[in-house]
Amino acid sequence: SRELFVLTYGALVAQLCKDYEKDEDVNTCLDRMGYGIGVRLIDDFLARSAVKKCRSYSETADMIAQVAFKMYLGVTPSVSCSSAAGNEFSLILDKNPLVDFVEELPAERASLCYCNLLCGVIRGALEMVHLAAEVTFLQDRLKGDAVTEIGITFLRKAEDRKHKR
Amino acid sequence: SRELFVLTYGALVAQLCKDYEKDEDVNTCLDRMGYGIGVRLIDDFLARSAVKKCRSYSETADMIAQVAFKMYLGVTPSVSCSSAAGNEFSLILDKNPLVDFVEELPAERASLCYCNLLCGVIRGALEMVHLAAEVTFLQDRLKGDAVTEIGITFLRKAEDRKHKR
Repeated sequence: SRELFVLTYGALVAQLCKDYEKDEDVNTCLDRMGYGIGVRLIDDFLARSAVKKCRSYSETADMIAQVAFKMYLGVTPSVSCSSAAGNEFSLILDKNPLVDFVEELPAERASLCYCNLLCGVIRGALEMVHLAAEVTFLQDRLKGDAVTEIGITFLRKAEDRKHKR
Repeated sequence: SRELFVLTYGALVAQLCKDYEKDEDVNTCLDRMGYGIGVRLIDDFLARSAVKKCRSYSETADMIAQVAFKMYLGVTPSVSCSSAAGNEFSLILDKNPLVDFVEELPAERASLCYCNLLCGVIRGALEMVHLAAEVTFLQDRLKGDAVTEIGITFLRKAEDRKHKR
């Protein structure tokens, strides 16, 4: 049952909003927490899903949407590739269970990425299978967008090295 | 899947430990958050469990253990009545899924009731069905006890009034 989780997540976001005045700081904190969760969750995911090694970014994105989201959130986002280079993907959620109890963001929290924990979880989990990625919300129904869209940009080796320099 | 919930709960507790120096303040905060969650969760519980009105404290305690814990945490505590007056009950958990990723409490957090959110959830949910109760951890495997035990004391009407005076 997800309700207890969803409400507990809401309590976490509310606490961070108390702790940090700026939405950006809350977003960063959620992402960082999510990263730590992803780093630990990947073992559970690999053990329980028994998936094989992905051979492409595209396969990896499908795996996140169809296996991981289904397993942990009970929903399956649709996936689209959004770059000719084949390293940028969008996960599109018609329904986001994490916001089930959220009506709308308060006016003073307009820049809050309420579900930013998820981005961190994906980023952390990918890193543990040696895939560097940037993960951010591109659209959010909580902010009036038609859908919720999570963007995943896999950082190619060259870019990755450049980042580290 | 509970793992994401359990890790997210861990992040919440860790954040509160950052926010509050004293374990007692963390415990109070978790209980208060849980209360807010219980107040909202009860509707979901009543709708999905389709349980009938309980006729006794004993029935209520059984319902919490056998239906609510099973539904939201996937475990079924055993219940024992611990007072001749019939208003004190213990829920005994051999296994507590909320601490799956916790090895032990750090030495400087020896008084932390890691799962205190649960007490608040039970208290909040009971209050919404017009039952005043005190809910606290009596034993905790994280603190070296053999089992984890949650005590529920239903406040009889007279006692209830006395408390409010």
